Amino acid sequence: MRTRAAVAIEAGNPLEVMEVNLEGPRPGEVLVEIKATGICHTDEFTLSGADPEGRFPAILGHEGAGVVVEVGEGVKSVRPGDHVIPLYTPECRECPSCLSRKTNLCTAIRDTQGQGLMPDGTTRFSTLDGDPILHYMGCSTFSNHTVLPEIAVAKVREDAPFDKICYIGCGVTTGIGAVINTAKVEIGAKAVVFGLGGIGLNVIQGLRLAGADMIIGVDVNPAKKAMAERFGMTHFINPKDCENVVQEIVEMTKTPFDRIGGADYSFDCTGNVKVMRDALECTHRGWGVSVIIGVAPAGAEISTRPFQLVTGRVWKGTAFGGARGRTDVPQIVDWYMDGKIEIDPMITHRLSLDEINKGFDLMHAGESIRSVVIY
Amino acid sequence: MRTRAAVAIEAGNPLEVMEVNLEGPRPGEVLVEIKATGICHTDEFTLSGADPEGRFPAILGHEGAGVVVEVGEGVKSVRPGDHVIPLYTPECRECPSCLSRKTNLCTAIRDTQGQGLMPDGTTRFSTLDGDPILHYMGCSTFSNHTVLPEIAVAKVREDAPFDKICYIGCGVTTGIGAVINTAKVEIGAKAVVFGLGGIGLNVIQGLRLAGADMIIGVDVNPAKKAMAERFGMTHFINPKDCENVVQEIVEMTKTPFDRIGGADYSFDCTGNVKVMRDALECTHRGWGVSVIIGVAPAGAEISTRPFQLVTGRVWKGTAFGGARGRTDVPQIVDWYMDGKIEIDPMITHRLSLDEINKGFDLMHAGESIRSVVIY
Ligand SMILES: NC(=O)c1ccc[n+]([C@@H]2O[C@H](COP(=O)([O-])OP(=O)(O)OC[C@H]3O[C@@H](n4cnc5c(N)ncnc54)[C@H](O)[C@@H]3O)[C@@H](O)[C@H]2O)c1
Ligand SMILES: NC(=O)c1ccc[n+]([C@@H]2O[C@H](COP(=O)([O-])OP(=O)(O)OC[C@H]3O[C@@H](n4cnc5c(N)ncnc54)[C@H](O)[C@@H]3O)[C@@H](O)[C@H]2O)c1
Ligand SMILES: [Zn+2]
Ligand SMILES: [Zn+2]
Ligand SMILES: [Zn+2]
Ligand SMILES: [Zn+2]
Repeated sequence: MRTRAAVAIEAGNPLEVMEVNLEGPRPGEVLVEIKATGICHTDEFTLSGADPEGRFPAILGHEGAGVVVEVGEGVKSVRPGDHVIPLYTPECRECPSCLSRKTNLCTAIRDTQGQGLMPDGTTRFSTLDGDPILHYMGCSTFSNHTVLPEIAVAKVREDAPFDKICYIGCGVTTGIGAVINTAKVEIGAKAVVFGLGGIGLNVIQGLRLAGADMIIGVDVNPAKKAMAERFGMTHFINPKDCENVVQEIVEMTKTPFDRIGGADYSFDCTGNVKVMRDALECTHRGWGVSVIIGVAPAGAEISTRPFQLVTGRVWKGTAFGGARGRTDVPQIVDWYMDGKIEIDPMITHRLSLDEINKGFDLMHAGESIRSVVIY
Repeated sequence: MRTRAAVAIEAGNPLEVMEVNLEGPRPGEVLVEIKATGICHTDEFTLSGADPEGRFPAILGHEGAGVVVEVGEGVKSVRPGDHVIPLYTPECRECPSCLSRKTNLCTAIRDTQGQGLMPDGTTRFSTLDGDPILHYMGCSTFSNHTVLPEIAVAKVREDAPFDKICYIGCGVTTGIGAVINTAKVEIGAKAVVFGLGGIGLNVIQGLRLAGADMIIGVDVNPAKKAMAERFGMTHFINPKDCENVVQEIVEMTKTPFDRIGGADYSFDCTGNVKVMRDALECTHRGWGVSVIIGVAPAGAEISTRPFQLVTGRVWKGTAFGGARGRTDVPQIVDWYMDGKIEIDPMITHRLSLDEINKGFDLMHAGESIRSVVIY
């Protein structure tokens, strides 16, 4: 079949919207009509050329929602008409990772996915001239139709609006999951969120959901303050306005009883390795847990004195918020529909596929939280 | 009173054994006759001058066992005749840390202890000329008698031999505790121990106790292999004999089912920051936990790519094995008496106080696991 897609021809250039060929689903695969897709920082990271593992030409996009159109041989868990969210972290439920009970990082199709291919080592996309186009993160939601492995789609309820729940395909789940799955924040905790963008705001609403007492937001852009407060931030720090962010946080978290100070939990949502260090070091001696969510530039390294860990701090990270896609994503959709979490105010811009490059411009300008492309 | 002690007059010089003055216990303090003390790497670290926080003149030693001789006003938990192990990590049971249920790092007397002083800001030791001598880690077990805060002694059973259980005051508890309190290793796990000295061997026996399936030891000194096997090591790697330790461990831990490979848990018992990085990176994607036990040189920093954490590895550390001194140490003494853990083969050398410097020489030569001074 033919479909319309925004193709990343090469790194550093805008996407080109064009007709492409799409082969139907092979055994174990699913053809999905994408109804809406968010534009995430990770798409920008790859498109810019900063991602050393980026491959081109490819159809980017990994934050989508849509409807199953056709299923390949042997597919049992979904059928045409089902509403689904594509999963860049699949959930096969039978690999060592899925069976470990300790991680969401399913490895069933990791190698081919990393190469921009379907599990059988081929691509379903091609130009009208027949030249292959690669998949991206196993999703390629910047195409109106895409093919996905069955284990990489989460079936969700049909009354949920595509243009909102597409965001659950990455940002919402990453932020909320980091709080509840990775950090396992408990009621009454004091937490710090570095970076109040699309991920940071979802960490903040995750902290509110988890019952945190103190939710300190840190951002170099003071324009981020109002929205973060709307999602539950209780204190704001602009690192440019204070001498030492770590010291500032330690002071803010002291109580008459606890003169040591420090956050119980911290989250890096910037991707800056210096911020990651501050995020670790501002946590409480003895039990502070710091979670890295941001993706750092190629080759960048985090450092600290080992004494920080020997005295009880824990350094972790999270991918897709530690969420198991097929199991946890439908629940997060329910939370949205039940009003336990909010998404609407974070969708700041709505675009057509033809306007998709504007979404990247808005991101660069720091003007959007999420731009969503509606097909 | 007068007592005999090995005094560290200044950094870099041998200890000097001499008579010193010791004031009796003030309120909340306990006078203990030390019967035996181990010589630990941390004493050497301070004596060498490498510890930027080292203060002199001081009476070092923090791995002892002895008998209470006299108690100060208000002391309720011990009385003369009780057998005790001094605790460099006290347990007050009322500070924010003790009450957090999340850490063993009691902060009740941390500031004064770090300065070599009793909680009231003074020292009980002085030269016969009346010049003050500092305490060390709140213990000073290189003195035949010492004064300790009540919250810094663990009462233990009276049939346990001092010359063995003194080692529970640091090395044994640190190694075993890192496994059971900090890493919380489960039955069937695969673990790697870097450095097979006095701490590493105790990590190994902790892993055996925890039911680990695979216990890989790594040491640049092949002479450490036999003893480590005696305590439960199942595989040995000499980094000098292989190109890439991390890759070697990943290969060794693969199974026909799990082609990813990597250790479930790793422990640094070397204090070398490069080893700490290897220890993290050889753990399994998705769930590997790496625990830093070794104390690094002043200013040294650990580094890694944040991707290591984002893909599910956890970097932690431990002090005194995460053990609460007054609560957990008596239980470890019971485990020794019941034969659940072994100590005797690790006490490789027995010395008199006059021979104490020989203990440091044996450590430098890598010939001892533990030298114990018997008063
Ligand atoms: N681990 C995962 O699974 C996962 C998933 C999605 C995105 N990410 C990553 O999360 C990060 C955040 O994504 P986003 O969409 O929220 O980006 P964003 O650009 O919307 O937000 C980043 C925020 O950080 C702020 N910031 C930048 N430098 C700062 C500094 N030094 N101190 C304080 N604040 C600073 C910016 O002003 C901005 O508000 C990115 O690195 C992205 O690649 C990770
Ligand atoms: N965190 C704590 O509470 C705590 C408590 C006590 C001791 N420590 C620290 O633990 C560390 C170990 O103490 P120990 O008494 O076992 O020391 P040790 O000298 O007895 O043992 C260290 C071992 O590491 C080996 N080693 C050195 N460099 C190596 C390398 N590059 N690769 C592999 N092996 C290497 C040595 O051959 C030796 O066998 C020290 O740094 C000590 O200060 C920490
Ligand atoms: Zn994303
Ligand atoms: Zn799987
Ligand atoms: Zn010690
Ligand atoms: Zn305490």
